[in-house]
Amino acid sequence: MDKNILEDILQNNRKYIKLGEVATYIPQLAKANKEDLGLCIKDMNGDMYACGDYEKKFTIQSMSKVITFTSCLLDNSIEDVKKTVSFEPTSTAFNAIVDLEIKNRHRPLNPFINAGAIACISMLKENTYQEKFDRIINFIKLLSLNENIDYDEEVYESERKTGSRNRALAYYMQSTGIIDKDVDIEKLLEVYFKICSIKVNCIDLSNIALIYANNGVNPFTKERYFSKEVSKIVVATMALCGMYDESGEIAVTVGIPSKSGVSGGILSVLPSKMGIGIYGPALNDKGTSVAGLKILESVSEKFDLSIY
Amino acid sequence: MDKNILEDILQNNRKYIKLGEVATYIPQLAKANKEDLGLCIKDMNGDMYACGDYEKKFTIQSMSKVITFTSCLLDNSIEDVKKTVSFEPTSTAFNAIVDLEIKNRHRPLNPFINAGAIACISMLKENTYQEKFDRIINFIKLLSLNENIDYDEEVYESERKTGSRNRALAYYMQSTGIIDKDVDIEKLLEVYFKICSIKVNCIDLSNIALIYANNGVNPFTKERYFSKEVSKIVVATMALCGMYDESGEIAVTVGIPSKSGVSGGILSVLPSKMGIGIYGPALNDKGTSVAGLKILESVSEKFDLSIY
Amino acid sequence: MDKNILEDILQNNRKYIKLGEVATYIPQLAKANKEDLGLCIKDMNGDMYACGDYEKKFTIQSMSKVITFTSCLLDNSIEDVKKTVSFEPTSTAFNAIVDLEIKNRHRPLNPFINAGAIACISMLKENTYQEKFDRIINFIKLLSLNENIDYDEEVYESERKTGSRNRALAYYMQSTGIIDKDVDIEKLLEVYFKICSIKVNCIDLSNIALIYANNGVNPFTKERYFSKEVSKIVVATMALCGMYDESGEIAVTVGIPSKSGVSGGILSVLPSKMGIGIYGPALNDKGTSVAGLKILESVSEKFDLSIY
Amino acid sequence: MDKNILEDILQNNRKYIKLGEVATYIPQLAKANKEDLGLCIKDMNGDMYACGDYEKKFTIQSMSKVITFTSCLLDNSIEDVKKTVSFEPTSTAFNAIVDLEIKNRHRPLNPFINAGAIACISMLKENTYQEKFDRIINFIKLLSLNENIDYDEEVYESERKTGSRNRALAYYMQSTGIIDKDVDIEKLLEVYFKICSIKVNCIDLSNIALIYANNGVNPFTKERYFSKEVSKIVVATMALCGMYDESGEIAVTVGIPSKSGVSGGILSVLPSKMGIGIYGPALNDKGTSVAGLKILESVSEKFDLSIY
Repeated sequence: MDKNILEDILQNNRKYIKLGEVATYIPQLAKANKEDLGLCIKDMNGDMYACGDYEKKFTIQSMSKVITFTSCLLDNSIEDVKKTVSFEPTSTAFNAIVDLEIKNRHRPLNPFINAGAIACISMLKENTYQEKFDRIINFIKLLSLNENIDYDEEVYESERKTGSRNRALAYYMQSTGIIDKDVDIEKLLEVYFKICSIKVNCIDLSNIALIYANNGVNPFTKERYFSKEVSKIVVATMALCGMYDESGEIAVTVGIPSKSGVSGGILSVLPSKMGIGIYGPALNDKGTSVAGLKILESVSEKFDLSIY
Repeated sequence: MDKNILEDILQNNRKYIKLGEVATYIPQLAKANKEDLGLCIKDMNGDMYACGDYEKKFTIQSMSKVITFTSCLLDNSIEDVKKTVSFEPTSTAFNAIVDLEIKNRHRPLNPFINAGAIACISMLKENTYQEKFDRIINFIKLLSLNENIDYDEEVYESERKTGSRNRALAYYMQSTGIIDKDVDIEKLLEVYFKICSIKVNCIDLSNIALIYANNGVNPFTKERYFSKEVSKIVVATMALCGMYDESGEIAVTVGIPSKSGVSGGILSVLPSKMGIGIYGPALNDKGTSVAGLKILESVSEKFDLSIY
Repeated sequence: MDKNILEDILQNNRKYIKLGEVATYIPQLAKANKEDLGLCIKDMNGDMYACGDYEKKFTIQSMSKVITFTSCLLDNSIEDVKKTVSFEPTSTAFNAIVDLEIKNRHRPLNPFINAGAIACISMLKENTYQEKFDRIINFIKLLSLNENIDYDEEVYESERKTGSRNRALAYYMQSTGIIDKDVDIEKLLEVYFKICSIKVNCIDLSNIALIYANNGVNPFTKERYFSKEVSKIVVATMALCGMYDESGEIAVTVGIPSKSGVSGGILSVLPSKMGIGIYGPALNDKGTSVAGLKILESVSEKFDLSIY
Repeated sequence: MDKNILEDILQNNRKYIKLGEVATYIPQLAKANKEDLGLCIKDMNGDMYACGDYEKKFTIQSMSKVITFTSCLLDNSIEDVKKTVSFEPTSTAFNAIVDLEIKNRHRPLNPFINAGAIACISMLKENTYQEKFDRIINFIKLLSLNENIDYDEEVYESERKTGSRNRALAYYMQSTGIIDKDVDIEKLLEVYFKICSIKVNCIDLSNIALIYANNGVNPFTKERYFSKEVSKIVVATMALCGMYDESGEIAVTVGIPSKSGVSGGILSVLPSKMGIGIYGPALNDKGTSVAGLKILESVSEKFDLSIY
């Protein structure tokens, strides 16, 4: 892999920024610099290839669902997880409620839509809501090899204030028994919103992704953070459900299991090979970085990375 | 009309009680005596025909939606009401969320499903949530000609504690703008739950119904409580939407505009003729009094009351 | 009732024509004169009040569903009919297929949507498809007091050629067992299309409606064509389902059980009082005569006809 | 790879046969021997590992959709294909019609559900329906390296006679313009039913799969049958949509892009490595070979084949 080629790819795809818009549902996201564009790739040898705004911080948003799902699988048997959330793709939007009602015995279709992630947090074994949050942020510090990970208080407050849809999803799941009736929905959502507000950059994402590419083992220290089985479940679910109702399209054009977030980040796992982090806050209409996606497509094509 | 015939009708339909079950989603409703069965009919001359447990008190539940809708129409132009709730029947259950997402520009389909009633309360012009409740209970006192109307504190508390589905509906509507973002959903739902907990008996229901049968005017004092236009809107909506997804079936077999509640009450309006109140807490699978419905059918058939 | 007032109402509502469009899905309907507007009211005394283009012929289209449903009820027990079609309103369009899949055990929600009418035709007891058609057209001759009723060969041919959606509905019902597997769907649809192509005018419609207003009895000859029970079922179903997903709106503004057709006709039944036929081919976006509906609303308001 | 290990895997999973049932919707499928179980794996060196009933013939059914989709991509630009069918997974059943109505601008969600495959056949560039069929069967002969491929006349006739659901899907698509109005739906479906009736065995399937594993090139003759781009599109779509609404579950447990058929066959592509054909007519409730799936899972686990 050649840093100059990556630099070319980044610049060649910069033109797509103008096809997207920065998220505006909360003011803190609207303040993002639409022109930002960053890329970081890390391979098994520890070589890192980065360009653009790869050190810029942004909130992890839905990419956190990868870590939440992993944690949920560590605390519960697969059979128990499946009783609460299935692993099937959805052809509706990330915040749709319709599937909760008419399909799948009320289970969220997968852990990468909002309802699924909220249900996963409710299944974490910690006793208090604070402990649930601490556990996730500490896990992110571990996987990103970055002790300085923190969350953005303003984004959190803003998400919390405007989160009616997520409240609807959570209360709906409580009404059908997917979330236990004793759960304090407001406190559960505080954890969810706080997790979404954790700040990362492209290096952090590439480090996290690399652990999944290596089946749960830190390739440098050889430390195992989770089992190969858990890793494969998470990566397969990313491949099928990571990009919402655009997952099929992206499997065809990119072929690298990925999870995007509304802040403009993309976390991509190339099994046995590399971890990729991308940032570009201008989003397409599905809520994914528009230029980021084009960069990922170009990288996949240039280096023949599709797993299919 | 002959009281003995009504007594016979009541006794002949008592056998249907065993086909139903008392509501159990809160303990207070589960305590109802399944065998209770009452009927009260009041006509324009002020003659009252009553039998069975017609003085027994029960909570008004969804029958309150008739008064809430009326109040909403008094406070807002029809055009404004229609922007928030349409007047169309639904073929899904009373607490379904799916229609909010896929149909009708996110508006509740009608004011007699939970979402519609909650939206109507949010449109009342009172400044505080307490005032909204006071206005509705006072209106019920007025229409039922009963100053002693009160609400059941235990039922209210119980509804409030278990109301996840209604929270989901309300937050969903807030997320789509049907309910304003500044509304305190929890306080709005307290009003909704408290209204549902107002206690009435069959006489109260028949009095309320009679006002609607007389196009908004108290037939005895000649006092007008609301316009003929509002009355016709409400009664027509009862005819089409009052019995949830069983409205068509009941139009065919009974032909009297009605609204049922999960406590086992039925409020029925026979335009220009009479008001009817029925009570029987054993419910069919749609949440309507099973024997009560059969009594209504028999009364309609016996006295040839269908409006169609 | 005064013919001059009706004439005024017709002229005052003529302005709404420009808000509508003539149906264009087949060329024969597109040839209608958008400016046509006719009204005919017939009461129990045999008095007829008519104005405008009340003698103009047009195809009966969906108004035929009233007669098809009636015939189906004559041939089968209510219980058997209900196994195939329910009597519930729909909040989706007249040719929607979604409700057939997800609701109601695959039954069409009511006999006045296309799927419901097609299912009703399949339940007629005649042995041959030709006999099914003959039976319906003869029944229409009888009810309209018009021996000269015929069908439009060109409209029929055109409907048949372009009827993919109706084929989809019929085959779908066959696949779920609502229509028997031995039924020749193509021949069944020929009957359906031919029935829709029967030509009537406002007088014919008002005569048909009058029989229903009189509970199945010809008020002049006292001949009974169908039972009071059947009549009430059909009229109640018109009230709740006759105007597709606009039925609630029209109950509120008009309050007269009606059935519209895409040719621009409206057939309205005022129980115990009168039959109404209206014609105006400019349609609103639900497929109902836009000025015709306004005329019906004005007539209802002027003469205080709402049944609610 | 060791033939003895495969033999053990096959025998160890034989017990799952009793959890499934042979398809019965046509008599010809019901005649299958429920106990049959076969496996064939072919690798890039041409080594073949086969056991059980790997030479038994069965109809290709939905596995043909892989070849139909490939052919469609060869005849049309990706952009044109996408106007007719998207590449997104579905969470509803293979023969569901609901998604055609409410999602995705009426396009079938992917080419591996019935509607998608029928739409793909309509896009083939051949002039006659016979030529469309000839083209597909000849392509299957080419990819399976088997000149003797034929179709089962009885299965074809039976599918044709009972195919109401597929007729509904096809006519629905014609009504929305996904299939052109000039297409003779009956003849188009004859092609579809005939393609589904083509007979193959496990060896044929493994040969076909191997071409896809090798990106469109016959690994022995080096002949290219289709481009790498087309191959990756098809394999990615298999990974996401190949197993209907169980695709996510199978990605997680197996991790090999696959397509199943209701005859009990499974065609699996392991990119750059091997082609797999499995047969076992006892189906799970999703319509996939129940023991076949368990064999695939065991093979994947034993030889660490998951691509994720």
